[in-house]
Amino acid sequence: MEQSTPDIVVGRLPLYLRALHHMAQEGRKVTSSQELGERLGISAAQIRKDLSQFGEFGKQGTGYDIEFLVDQLRQILKVNQIWEVAVVGAGDIGSALARYQGFTDRGFRVVMIFDSDPEKVGTQVDTFVVQNSSEMIDTIKAAGIRVAMLAVPATQAQAVTDELVKAGVRAILNYAPINLTVPEGVRVQYTDPVTHLQRMTYYL
Amino acid sequence: MEQSTPDIVVGRLPLYLRALHHMAQEGRKVTSSQELGERLGISAAQIRKDLSQFGEFGKQGTGYDIEFLVDQLRQILKVNQIWEVAVVGAGDIGSALARYQGFTDRGFRVVMIFDSDPEKVGTQVDTFVVQNSSEMIDTIKAAGIRVAMLAVPATQAQAVTDELVKAGVRAILNYAPINLTVPEGVRVQYTDPVTHLQRMTYYL
Repeated sequence: MEQSTPDIVVGRLPLYLRALHHMAQEGRKVTSSQELGERLGISAAQIRKDLSQFGEFGKQGTGYDIEFLVDQLRQILKVNQIWEVAVVGAGDIGSALARYQGFTDRGFRVVMIFDSDPEKVGTQVDTFVVQNSSEMIDTIKAAGIRVAMLAVPATQAQAVTDELVKAGVRAILNYAPINLTVPEGVRVQYTDPVTHLQRMTYYL
Repeated sequence: MEQSTPDIVVGRLPLYLRALHHMAQEGRKVTSSQELGERLGISAAQIRKDLSQFGEFGKQGTGYDIEFLVDQLRQILKVNQIWEVAVVGAGDIGSALARYQGFTDRGFRVVMIFDSDPEKVGTQVDTFVVQNSSEMIDTIKAAGIRVAMLAVPATQAQAVTDELVKAGVRAILNYAPINLTVPEGVRVQYTDPVTHLQRMTYYL
């Protein structure tokens, strides 16, 4: 069943989880697809349809138990565990990611940061010492890390990606403004502020 | 015509533009929907269908003139001009955005940065002096700025958004990990590393 879930549905689950997590923090116990939909700008019908692909989480008339649904979504998204994450690139964005407090309780923990610039190797970023990219493959392999965030210049992004794949990384969040080619079984997500902005200026 | 273009199609145009821009930088003159598709992991048929919504850009057998298509996409996305952008939040991410060199030639220029923290107001970030958020509405209004990037804590994001909307901002790229409510006519794009990562761990 889950194998055939469209990626666009999978992409909405983290948004549901985030909103439910906020509700739990507000001390809320129960919600509805209507309320969740209003928070997210997604129709209640869409939310019910998405969630129904994974099981029966709500009851007609009583809605969703927030804590239960949070647990279920964490399991489905496999963030009921902590994934160790490598950051590649100790520039502004990489350093910001290494310092970012928003990973806590959401399934991820940055554990190492790499750079190829001799000026940066050995310096401190948050609690991390920047490691030399030349040791990246071995270090990541030894640690069994499968998730990385890539914050290197566009010109280096593909070469670094090839190394990450060799090291066993299977999920890459790419901050470099360039499309990456990866083998089957490796996932890439992109976050380029300019493509986001351009998607909005179309409407202005 | 353009009014009815699905947002998902609009969302792919910046990716086409970015890939074509890279090709132009490589000195290339002509491409095909096949080649573009391979670079982007999107089918050639999808690319032809998307572009056909905006005009006749290619010729059967000869493909697309890269420079021409870049110009056309810039016009469609309204980035054949420079949009001035306000950054709100002078923490790690906001500062990284203010320093980011990747906006050049892609339609955007950061022109001001705000923070509410008295320790940060008046300090320098790149070429900018951090301005007090209390003056944000007036300053943005006076400058006629319509695009903002939001890098404040989640707890402040909605209140700051309400102020940005009052100031005339109509496009917000939100780095805070929370969903925002905005009136009709205001666009928000989200970039939260955790939701991107969770979308990938599902498959691991």
